[in-house]
Amino acid sequence: VRWFRLVVAYDGTAFHGWQIQRGQRTVQGVLEEALRGAFGEVEMTRLEAAGRTDAGVHARGQTVSFGADVALPPRAIGPLVNRRLPADVRVRASRETRAGFSARRSALGRRYAYRVLFEEDLLRERFAWHPRRRVDPERLSRACAPLPGEHDFSAFMTSGSSPTVPVCRISRASWSVEDRSLRFDVVADHFLYRMVRNLVGTAFELSGAPDPAQAMEAVIASRDRRRAGATAPAHGLCLEEVFYPREAIE
Amino acid sequence: VRWFRLVVAYDGTAFHGWQIQRGQRTVQGVLEEALRGAFGEVEMTRLEAAGRTDAGVHARGQTVSFGADVALPPRAIGPLVNRRLPADVRVRASRETRAGFSARRSALGRRYAYRVLFEEDLLRERFAWHPRRRVDPERLSRACAPLPGEHDFSAFMTSGSSPTVPVCRISRASWSVEDRSLRFDVVADHFLYRMVRNLVGTAFELSGAPDPAQAMEAVIASRDRRRAGATAPAHGLCLEEVFYPREAIE
Repeated sequence: VRWFRLVVAYDGTAFHGWQIQRGQRTVQGVLEEALRGAFGEVEMTRLEAAGRTDAGVHARGQTVSFGADVALPPRAIGPLVNRRLPADVRVRASRETRAGFSARRSALGRRYAYRVLFEEDLLRERFAWHPRRRVDPERLSRACAPLPGEHDFSAFMTSGSSPTVPVCRISRASWSVEDRSLRFDVVADHFLYRMVRNLVGTAFELSGAPDPAQAMEAVIASRDRRRAGATAPAHGLCLEEVFYPREAIE
Repeated sequence: VRWFRLVVAYDGTAFHGWQIQRGQRTVQGVLEEALRGAFGEVEMTRLEAAGRTDAGVHARGQTVSFGADVALPPRAIGPLVNRRLPADVRVRASRETRAGFSARRSALGRRYAYRVLFEEDLLRERFAWHPRRRVDPERLSRACAPLPGEHDFSAFMTSGSSPTVPVCRISRASWSVEDRSLRFDVVADHFLYRMVRNLVGTAFELSGAPDPAQAMEAVIASRDRRRAGATAPAHGLCLEEVFYPREAIE
């Protein structure tokens, strides 16, 4: 068995998220089917993804690992599989990797982007949220200033996922304005279930507080989901990239 | 009969362009049908558009005029029609206008944007062209430097359209870099058939010339379509906005 790493992009609109579920169209399901179709009758492990994105969430740099008993040149796998994939998923890169590489466990960090439109825009709203009320980008930035660092982010975890360590290390949490829209970039070693969407929803709510930064600190410290804001819609979120130690991917 | 002006956005992917054609799905056809459905049995003129966009071309600010014998408050027309429109067309604004207003003839200018991706990007390629070869933005800018001003742009007109004055006044033609992509913004009083796509294709070809600006000047002066470059793909193009004299729209 050889081990492979794929970088995968998908438009999450028509998927029930990453993880395979009976009777649902999922990215994992569609991708495993295409790989099996391309490889024929060979031994193949289940696919493992760096981020198990939810229904409606997009990816530009999802990373996937698997083992398979195939003799193909690694770089040929991408084009071969793409011919069997629908238009809303695509393998961007395919490489061989060392045995034991795990897209999920070997990852050092993930970057997600959450996009927000200032105004209705038919051509962009598939990949960005258009909130009903206007928000001040400066106040959103202030609300997110306390996020970097190592904190227990339990207040931002939606229940219903498998238990994980609630302490995450955020190394970046920045809002930028681009072309009548906003973009929130957040990098962390790992994320809790729906954490990015809960951070965005909370930042929106706290942007109206007298001191948004202090209000965010209080929510973090509470570790209480009920203190945080609503979950922002899935379609604004995109898994942009996953970081690995150089030795794991070379 | 009262006269109305609509600002319309559409994703051109699944349309055979603006203009009504028997047996084809066109924006004009879909929009006229929705208006008739919303208005019921009333007199209504044909719709007139500021830009008769080609198959696959998108619009964010297409402007449309028509006369109809309806008693509705003008601002109610948009929401009413939107309920009858498919997800890929939307009325952004509806206003009453003076009799004789023509979305096409009253327009002072139009702005088109053409988007180009530096790299393949599943989430953006519906609205942007990803050319096979890399291009230097600086050289594209130099190729387009001679465009502003009043010129005979016959070299950039694809034949097959109704005859128009080949002299256009371009007031802006600029390339900007944004988020691993390029955007060409071009404003003119009017455009010839496929002019923007021919300008983009030509700029790409001339970006490799020793002096791109001089090469573009020579193509303009030739007024010869065979001297210009290939037509860039439709899906990178978007009609962004249409300008009217204030007295025409108030």
